[in-house]
Amino acid sequence: MRIGIIGGGAIGLLFACYLSKSNQVTLYCRTNEQVRLINKYGIYLKHHGTVDNFTIKAQPSDEISAEDLFIIAVKQYQLEQIERVFHHIPSQTPLIFIQNGVAHLKFIENLSHETIIVGVVEHGALKEKTNYVHHTGEGLTRLAIFRGNEQFVGPIIHKLNTIPFPFIFEKDYLEMVFGKLIVNAVINPLTAILKAKNGELMLNSHYLHLVHLVLDEVVKILDISDREKVFMRIKTICENTASNQSSMLKDILNHRQTEIDGIIGGLLNMAETKDLKVPVLQFLYHSIKGMER
Amino acid sequence: MRIGIIGGGAIGLLFACYLSKSNQVTLYCRTNEQVRLINKYGIYLKHHGTVDNFTIKAQPSDEISAEDLFIIAVKQYQLEQIERVFHHIPSQTPLIFIQNGVAHLKFIENLSHETIIVGVVEHGALKEKTNYVHHTGEGLTRLAIFRGNEQFVGPIIHKLNTIPFPFIFEKDYLEMVFGKLIVNAVINPLTAILKAKNGELMLNSHYLHLVHLVLDEVVKILDISDREKVFMRIKTICENTASNQSSMLKDILNHRQTEIDGIIGGLLNMAETKDLKVPVLQFLYHSIKGMER
Repeated sequence: MRIGIIGGGAIGLLFACYLSKSNQVTLYCRTNEQVRLINKYGIYLKHHGTVDNFTIKAQPSDEISAEDLFIIAVKQYQLEQIERVFHHIPSQTPLIFIQNGVAHLKFIENLSHETIIVGVVEHGALKEKTNYVHHTGEGLTRLAIFRGNEQFVGPIIHKLNTIPFPFIFEKDYLEMVFGKLIVNAVINPLTAILKAKNGELMLNSHYLHLVHLVLDEVVKILDISDREKVFMRIKTICENTASNQSSMLKDILNHRQTEIDGIIGGLLNMAETKDLKVPVLQFLYHSIKGMER
Repeated sequence: MRIGIIGGGAIGLLFACYLSKSNQVTLYCRTNEQVRLINKYGIYLKHHGTVDNFTIKAQPSDEISAEDLFIIAVKQYQLEQIERVFHHIPSQTPLIFIQNGVAHLKFIENLSHETIIVGVVEHGALKEKTNYVHHTGEGLTRLAIFRGNEQFVGPIIHKLNTIPFPFIFEKDYLEMVFGKLIVNAVINPLTAILKAKNGELMLNSHYLHLVHLVLDEVVKILDISDREKVFMRIKTICENTASNQSSMLKDILNHRQTEIDGIIGGLLNMAETKDLKVPVLQFLYHSIKGMER
């Protein structure tokens, strides 16, 4: 299968390497420098201490070629910037969106493409150089139909699946997206504000208290009945990635824009619609927005 | 006047220097090392770029001599540890307590001394070495009667007053203490969590939003009608000390215990008594307690 991956960040590089094992991958990058480096030297993938080199074709993202499938791996807040790219992708070509949060769903709705899949990625990845990615945590990628025919997803998953890079199919995209959203809404802003590794949220009893304060408001907004199940999922992820820095903490430490608008911003909008008071989420939102400056 | 100052922290050192100009000061210290250094080298006071040396008598705090007045300059959470010291101070000797927050008022209530004055200190001070203090911000010290005869306070203030170290008399100790408490409750934990200087709370529009979120809950607990007046006081202090780090930020950066229990802990207790929900104050409390570890 010919797969176009749009976005040369940590996740884009990671997907390009693993999917190139049994597919023909083209990575579409924003900068000519990254295109040049990848075409010349390939992509380096570090995993469990060993480093492999992958030969990948790279192209500028405004020069879209024909592909059987596109995976859109840019950040949610970059989608608007690359909107014109989608005019060059035929509406029959399936698209997979793997952004965090829920804010991208509005963007997706306005596209004319027939088959749209949304995904949530549970891998940890760190872009160490322009063409060097470190796979810091193994997880899986969940995919669900956002629009189109369910029968397309099975074959796509079959072709994407590779070891140790599994894909699984989820029935309900909203439930899947919400599940990831909750985890992100709790772990990301807290670790970024506290400058704490994921594991500390469970080990430090005061930080655990903060997890519950945030979860209280998220559960209220999303009207979730099984609070305990959600908490256990957060706990498991914190424990499995105990020594990792969350993506938002890394963004803050590196003075980059974060995904706070897509994650907490989306929840604040929902709370406003439902006329709910969520002071702790407002606190998280403005703390991170203030730190981004 | 013979003045005993108990506590050789930044504020104790600062008071010792200025009050020694027209009084006979003894500084009571916890460590023998500090006693030795001060008796040998005096105290260095840095102010507006110049450094002066003050000859001050120092004594261990368990060797209390006769004084006309004691100023207790230890942190609120250290009061319990020095409780026995008060048994050696005659009950006729006036005491001045200058702790932050409200938690120390309970401790004071149980003392048998006839004249007790409480104060709030608006100076900025940084202890740079064991016997070296930097006067980083000029302010004033407000004093009010907690217990005893009001006529004692006038002469005391008269004898303490010196330039640039003014003392003023306040009628209502609770209003005075609450005023300082509110300022501390808003500025201290926020700057410590955000790692921000005082001025940033007003200059960064997102941080200003956080100031209002915290103030909303404090105003509710203390049943304050003139919210605008309180906000303006916070604003003025942030602007006057714009480039200062708050004491709580310094404590966190130096891995020291903070005064969070005396400040936010006291407010949380009041909120519980009144059955009020204050999630943002809980967030501040547990963030700081978690960072203290």
